[in-house]
Amino acid sequence: MIARVLGSAAGGGSPQWNCHCTVCTAVRAGAGPPRTQSSIAVTLDRDDWFLFNASPDVHRQIDGLTVAAVLLTDAELDHTAGLLLLREARALRLYATAAIQRTLRDGSGLLPLLERYCTVEWIPVELGVPFPLTPGLTCEAFDVPTTKKDRFGVNVSEGRVVGYRLTDAGGTLVYLPGAQSLPEFGPCDCLLLDGSFFRDDELSATRTARDMGHLPIVDSMPSIKAPRTIFVHINNTNPILLDDSPERRVVEANGMEVAMDGLEVEL
Amino acid sequence: MIARVLGSAAGGGSPQWNCHCTVCTAVRAGAGPPRTQSSIAVTLDRDDWFLFNASPDVHRQIDGLTVAAVLLTDAELDHTAGLLLLREARALRLYATAAIQRTLRDGSGLLPLLERYCTVEWIPVELGVPFPLTPGLTCEAFDVPTTKKDRFGVNVSEGRVVGYRLTDAGGTLVYLPGAQSLPEFGPCDCLLLDGSFFRDDELSATRTARDMGHLPIVDSMPSIKAPRTIFVHINNTNPILLDDSPERRVVEANGMEVAMDGLEVEL
Repeated sequence: MIARVLGSAAGGGSPQWNCHCTVCTAVRAGAGPPRTQSSIAVTLDRDDWFLFNASPDVHRQIDGLTVAAVLLTDAELDHTAGLLLLREARALRLYATAAIQRTLRDGSGLLPLLERYCTVEWIPVELGVPFPLTPGLTCEAFDVPTTKKDRFGVNVSEGRVVGYRLTDAGGTLVYLPGAQSLPEFGPCDCLLLDGSFFRDDELSATRTARDMGHLPIVDSMPSIKAPRTIFVHINNTNPILLDDSPERRVVEANGMEVAMDGLEVEL
Repeated sequence: MIARVLGSAAGGGSPQWNCHCTVCTAVRAGAGPPRTQSSIAVTLDRDDWFLFNASPDVHRQIDGLTVAAVLLTDAELDHTAGLLLLREARALRLYATAAIQRTLRDGSGLLPLLERYCTVEWIPVELGVPFPLTPGLTCEAFDVPTTKKDRFGVNVSEGRVVGYRLTDAGGTLVYLPGAQSLPEFGPCDCLLLDGSFFRDDELSATRTARDMGHLPIVDSMPSIKAPRTIFVHINNTNPILLDDSPERRVVEANGMEVAMDGLEVEL
């Protein structure tokens, strides 16, 4: 399979429009490439592409690609607002857990809004039950327990944040753009992992990475056993976004990578 | 005043992600620049910018600009979905008619969704009542009657689609990105006008430009008396998007212009 990183930054992108932090300022000055908001696309044949999340930057991320379906890892706006920008499609196939679907329908209301424009076929995703995404490509969702605030108030827990495990003849890839702790997902050849924050106190001592539903990189690195690990969903404040930062060197010295928009992984 | 065209295309942009019409194909091949979705920003001092509509492309349109407020011409998603992408702001000042506000609150639901992230100060806009947007810059909204479908079903008519007339010491600019007919808006030095479609039957004989709430360019041109007229909100199928099209030459032969992203008008 081929997995293309469509967007490697967290919500707001890098640089973030209204942010003048050290990292955003440096990125504006060229210390790292600009990055769009978190999403990947997976294909076997470069004809049909499966989107994982629909970021608000989806238009420029997919121009020229045929979207076969969208799979969601949660219902956060930075992963779902792009669904509204796919409304010009005649129909959309949407894979999501019942919890995510309910949040989109009764919580944020994005699903009923989208349905005023196009047909949406919801394909329920059951945790731990593999399904064929397309002949030759098997997909399985796993739960990512989180204490992150249930912003849209539909009071669901299981399946609110998930990761996906994708297997074809070439190997297994795991996509996990949001993780407060490392869930059990079995062996894989390549792990695309939540790299929102490098340290837990990166934003402040009181509003930590963990409070915001993210396991900081310094804490995830020691537990990772995947042959290839690439950090995605990187917050605009995270110094690994800078090509020459000490934090980037730490990641690379541990044999891991920092995603860029357009990066392709082939298994 | 300075008015910058942030986005010159209609909803979906040019080229549109899933469109392979003659014009989109030609734009992909370089026959015209890509264009983002419809919005302008107005400033007196290049420090504070007033956005007219918040397009889904707002992030890349405003990076580096300070947004003083957003004014809305209607509640369509291509003019309002970008509000969700401004949620990282601490507070947003939003100028809109009661009809547009009600549509955002009770119809599309974007306003309550945005309010879960940041404070929104709604400043009601009364039709035909000039107000100071900032010292030295006066603004006035005028109604644009439309038979366009009330997609969000709040059953309002007056103030559902409006244009804005902006006056400072340098002159008067009118922004009218949606118009099914030409309303009365008085004299102006520069008119930024709905150029969605060149001909009424551009998409098909049954789904006309007028049905979709837009006055075709061939019908608006003869009535326009502004010293400078620039077409904005151009649909991805409109051949004026191509630098060398016969339709572009017709517009230019009539002394009018086709907007590009980044174009600045100084009065």
